Amino acid sequence: MTLKNTNCRIAIDAMGGDFAPQNAVIGAVQAYNQSKDFQLILVGDREKIMEVLNSNNLSLDSENIVHTSQTIEMHESPTLAIKTKQDSSIVVGAKLVKDGKADAFVSAGNTGAMMAACTLIIGRIRGVGRPTIGAALPSEKGGVCHVFDVGASVDSKPIHLLEYAIMGSIFVQEMYGKNNPTVGLLSVGEEEDKGNELVKATSKLLKEAKVNFVGNVEGRDILKGTVDIVVCDGYVGNIILKFAESVIGLLKGKIRNYANQGLWNKIRVLFARGTLRNSLEDMDYQSHGGVPLLGINGIGIIGHGSSSELAIKNMVLKAKEMYDKKLTQKIEESLKSLTERNNGS
Amino acid sequence: MTLKNTNCRIAIDAMGGDFAPQNAVIGAVQAYNQSKDFQLILVGDREKIMEVLNSNNLSLDSENIVHTSQTIEMHESPTLAIKTKQDSSIVVGAKLVKDGKADAFVSAGNTGAMMAACTLIIGRIRGVGRPTIGAALPSEKGGVCHVFDVGASVDSKPIHLLEYAIMGSIFVQEMYGKNNPTVGLLSVGEEEDKGNELVKATSKLLKEAKVNFVGNVEGRDILKGTVDIVVCDGYVGNIILKFAESVIGLLKGKIRNYANQGLWNKIRVLFARGTLRNSLEDMDYQSHGGVPLLGINGIGIIGHGSSSELAIKNMVLKAKEMYDKKLTQKIEESLKSLTERNNGS
Repeated sequence: MTLKNTNCRIAIDAMGGDFAPQNAVIGAVQAYNQSKDFQLILVGDREKIMEVLNSNNLSLDSENIVHTSQTIEMHESPTLAIKTKQDSSIVVGAKLVKDGKADAFVSAGNTGAMMAACTLIIGRIRGVGRPTIGAALPSEKGGVCHVFDVGASVDSKPIHLLEYAIMGSIFVQEMYGKNNPTVGLLSVGEEEDKGNELVKATSKLLKEAKVNFVGNVEGRDILKGTVDIVVCDGYVGNIILKFAESVIGLLKGKIRNYANQGLWNKIRVLFARGTLRNSLEDMDYQSHGGVPLLGINGIGIIGHGSSSELAIKNMVLKAKEMYDKKLTQKIEESLKSLTERNNGS
Repeated sequence: MTLKNTNCRIAIDAMGGDFAPQNAVIGAVQAYNQSKDFQLILVGDREKIMEVLNSNNLSLDSENIVHTSQTIEMHESPTLAIKTKQDSSIVVGAKLVKDGKADAFVSAGNTGAMMAACTLIIGRIRGVGRPTIGAALPSEKGGVCHVFDVGASVDSKPIHLLEYAIMGSIFVQEMYGKNNPTVGLLSVGEEEDKGNELVKATSKLLKEAKVNFVGNVEGRDILKGTVDIVVCDGYVGNIILKFAESVIGLLKGKIRNYANQGLWNKIRVLFARGTLRNSLEDMDYQSHGGVPLLGINGIGIIGHGSSSELAIKNMVLKAKEMYDKKLTQKIEESLKSLTERNNGS
């Protein structure tokens, strides 16, 4: 297979994820075969990448592989790892973007290391205090509700939450075609006098900002889909996200117990399996593809460690779409006017 | 019906809840009929209480009714309402405890007003900076995981989280018979260096405290049941709780959509209904009975607005159990030694 040399260059961490390099390599090639409209760069151990390609009857020009000798394991300390493993696929991938040799970097590897590499090596967009990661949770209404931030940073200040709201609005508008998406601020009640100090101070900022802020929302409003975007500090966002993921485990356990209470229950559960699977799988949002780290000087997409080939493929195609839609440039534009206004005031 | 005059006196807000006075009165009388070992005090509009009693062929001595002329509605501003409605059932009920005329007060009325009345009128136990409300969420292991605080206060300081851990441990040990219950601190990772400033400072306090602290836990550990008690600020606890309640709505909606996609799906869903109901109902923890406000100088139990007769009955019986087990005294003892140690150090 010979790859076209188009404008968009997407680097993929071939060593990232629990099923690397297999899923990362196959998923990346599948994305390329579907789009053909970008240059693919596999970053990782050349020999291992070749093995996967050969055993799947695929070939790739050697210029499309950037060899690295190290891998950051899933449970290594992120900041230490990116310091000490300079020839790891995550560090090298981020450097490709930093050095203008790639436009996007996609990894299902160590989440913390990927965040640190993107933030510290690629760097932040001018005017961004803190980059953010969003998660799309299913909503009762059938669509999704995007929560920003879900763990890129904790102890956010009001100005950071404002940045999340702006970056999230651009992301949802461009990538989900949702015009002027609604923004809610996560609190313990809809009333303005409720909430913690952070909420009260942020609420004031959001009211004056160029986002479609509709007010404070509660924990139940995420799955209800009351707003398109829910803004919160990464501490609470991350806890909600992990809580949501664990709902599936709880229900599966309960259904298993129910099935074990006699043959009739077992038959009912067997019969209901399709319904249940269908109703629950949306909660496991991460299986569908990665999440972008917004606010960095390039495109960085972070996937779940257990990413399937399909998830990797979706991540690469998402990176391509973000490139085509000039997400980074649009975020920079929006935040430039914010910075200028703040400096001018 | 003539009621015995025992040592324990439980006041019930007859006007509290969406189905008051019906559910409150019937539930309270049912609790009395089961226990017979406490004095029942119905607080509310005498005429309306009598109507419910008469239409259900029940009678009650007039000394067991404390007449009030006002009701705090579900959506009134709590602090304003308890100031301006001095003859409301919530204010009068709390005053009965304050004045030593009742040992416990139970209400399914306005949650915020009930919290404010209990905290401001009944007052805090010496040594308690902030009272706390816990919620018991179902766990994969079959038991429950108690989350403290779920909304009694936001912007908690490390010392408050320590108090929640101590009060929660006593509550779970006494009321759930769990010896030396394990305590986890809610964070964004198990590692000590993760988490926000509050988590890092609290972790140090918990390590030195007389609670069975096992370390930091994540959002997923609540439903997994990794620990018996999860401690967090009321802002995040309240958001998790409301998020958890909304899971049922999401799944019901998804199942409805699935059923609407053709006859075969509809049949499957009809068949699966029992399984689903069985598996989901535990998430709606509040339907089972109220939650105590720990740290006040007496027993205060707050119920969901939609409380059924059974839920009210359970709340009253829980108040009786807390009285019998001397919860308030035990919390006072534990926190006295904490205060003394802090003063001495």
